[in-house]
Amino acid sequence: MKNEWGNAMYPVVPGVVRRHEVVGTVTDVGGGVSKFKVGDTVGVGYFVDSCRTCESCTKGQESYCPDLVQASNGVGFDGATTQGGFSDVLVVSQDYVVRVPESLPPAGAAPLLCAGVTVYSPMVEYGLNAPGKHLGVVGLGGLGHLAVKFGKAFGMKVTVISTSPSKREEALDRLGADAFLVSRDPDQMKAAASTMDGIIDTVSAAHPVVPLLELLKPRGLVVVVGIPSKPLEVPALAIVGGGKRVVGSGGGGIAECQEMLDFAGEHGITADIEVVGMDYVNTAIQRLEKNDVRYRFVADVAGSLRAAA
Amino acid sequence: MKNEWGNAMYPVVPGVVRRHEVVGTVTDVGGGVSKFKVGDTVGVGYFVDSCRTCESCTKGQESYCPDLVQASNGVGFDGATTQGGFSDVLVVSQDYVVRVPESLPPAGAAPLLCAGVTVYSPMVEYGLNAPGKHLGVVGLGGLGHLAVKFGKAFGMKVTVISTSPSKREEALDRLGADAFLVSRDPDQMKAAASTMDGIIDTVSAAHPVVPLLELLKPRGLVVVVGIPSKPLEVPALAIVGGGKRVVGSGGGGIAECQEMLDFAGEHGITADIEVVGMDYVNTAIQRLEKNDVRYRFVADVAGSLRAAA
Repeated sequence: MKNEWGNAMYPVVPGVVRRHEVVGTVTDVGGGVSKFKVGDTVGVGYFVDSCRTCESCTKGQESYCPDLVQASNGVGFDGATTQGGFSDVLVVSQDYVVRVPESLPPAGAAPLLCAGVTVYSPMVEYGLNAPGKHLGVVGLGGLGHLAVKFGKAFGMKVTVISTSPSKREEALDRLGADAFLVSRDPDQMKAAASTMDGIIDTVSAAHPVVPLLELLKPRGLVVVVGIPSKPLEVPALAIVGGGKRVVGSGGGGIAECQEMLDFAGEHGITADIEVVGMDYVNTAIQRLEKNDVRYRFVADVAGSLRAAA
Repeated sequence: MKNEWGNAMYPVVPGVVRRHEVVGTVTDVGGGVSKFKVGDTVGVGYFVDSCRTCESCTKGQESYCPDLVQASNGVGFDGATTQGGFSDVLVVSQDYVVRVPESLPPAGAAPLLCAGVTVYSPMVEYGLNAPGKHLGVVGLGGLGHLAVKFGKAFGMKVTVISTSPSKREEALDRLGADAFLVSRDPDQMKAAASTMDGIIDTVSAAHPVVPLLELLKPRGLVVVVGIPSKPLEVPALAIVGGGKRVVGSGGGGIAECQEMLDFAGEHGITADIEVVGMDYVNTAIQRLEKNDVRYRFVADVAGSLRAAA
């Protein structure tokens, strides 16, 4: 919306959910399509193609392909700019489409296609999916609240770590976390030291990582999925003595996205969402056009967005 | 020697090699000893006991035991301060003693007990021990030169990364590395971008980690075994996009130390060393007593050290 990353290719269709977390119904299939038929409920995540030959692609880790074609604001191998899930029609190779379980409401399932797999993938990769393990979750936004839900479905103890005591009720009562830690309370943090197997850190604001490392058991890890603009400061002593790890994780592959959706279907996991109509988007754009110069990039392309809508 | 970590328990026997990287001959065994007999060539690393019951101990990762008893400047479960390999006699439970292969010269094998296992352990743990993989090694000191030797013995491509072009000959000709990168040369670094599976970073001086992360393939990792006094600066974007990892590693367990020694024996791996006599140590201490106030901690305990020698 604000072109904060400076990489918008105009004309562009903005948005996040429904832009690259798309659930829809198959309306047509090509001659060679075997995996899906007209009428199937399917999903498309934040990429719609990849090179299929690099080390990442052959390992099923397509999200790390250097030639990944993003679902929007990307350029396909046919040279066309991708416009994501607000397009009138989305044409995607069957290899990059996943099946959405019938048991899940489509709107609540959609964010699983990016936010869901982004937390699920490292949880499985790093063994944070076993009963008896203790998972920490930092931040209760789009990513964090799904990490709590997956953690509980895996049978783990889940502790939410937050700067804000006001999140306690949401964490414990609504999301079912087992414990809640206020990161600014040194006594609480000290009492929980060396107890966690892993922490999913979803926060995109600058924050210290050392207090999180101290919560970990030996060999524990912090999985970074948020992107603060300032570098994380990691003292070597904080990771060497305990063999601890700070790992980044970006999305997930197609096979694990399907695995995640099937798991979500079995356990009734969906994202907490608010459904808004396209008129909400149009109203927001009109307001932006009139009042707020910070949003001029959106205003620039309002015509395109309205046309697409 | 300088008590830089501020944790010396006086009287203390200083030193590194021979203090906690000890090779010697068994001179006596207790009644219950089954693994060793008088005359065996054995080694003791940087710890001589651990709790044996915590999660780390039961997994064979004794080096991460919170109650680890260090080989020197530690306190044993009997309450006595440990004095390391310069002691007249070293009494160690057989469970914390390893067998040194007959094929290795004892002096060159000794540093394997700490430096060797410190690089070997993460290389095996993280799969940096397979032919066809590409290992980077930063720093050619006690740890780094052993990482190169193990890397080559594992059949990997090994590239040494250094700020100093003067290390090229040592890296390529003497240690047998396949390539040498000057980290201050942007063209060289760019040409090697995204080519390495993992990097063993042994440097204890402050240095940027981002150029190392750029050398990694997706999912690659930097293993931190050096301890710079300033925190590593790790931008989230540098690890999230490629699913990259910054991991600490501290020593290794007893079983993997034995495995490492057996591997070293098979491949003729020893540390590059300079053998000095105790007269060298005494001379150094006398010089320190006279001239250099920075070394007063050593001068304080010179009597103790001379007695031990």
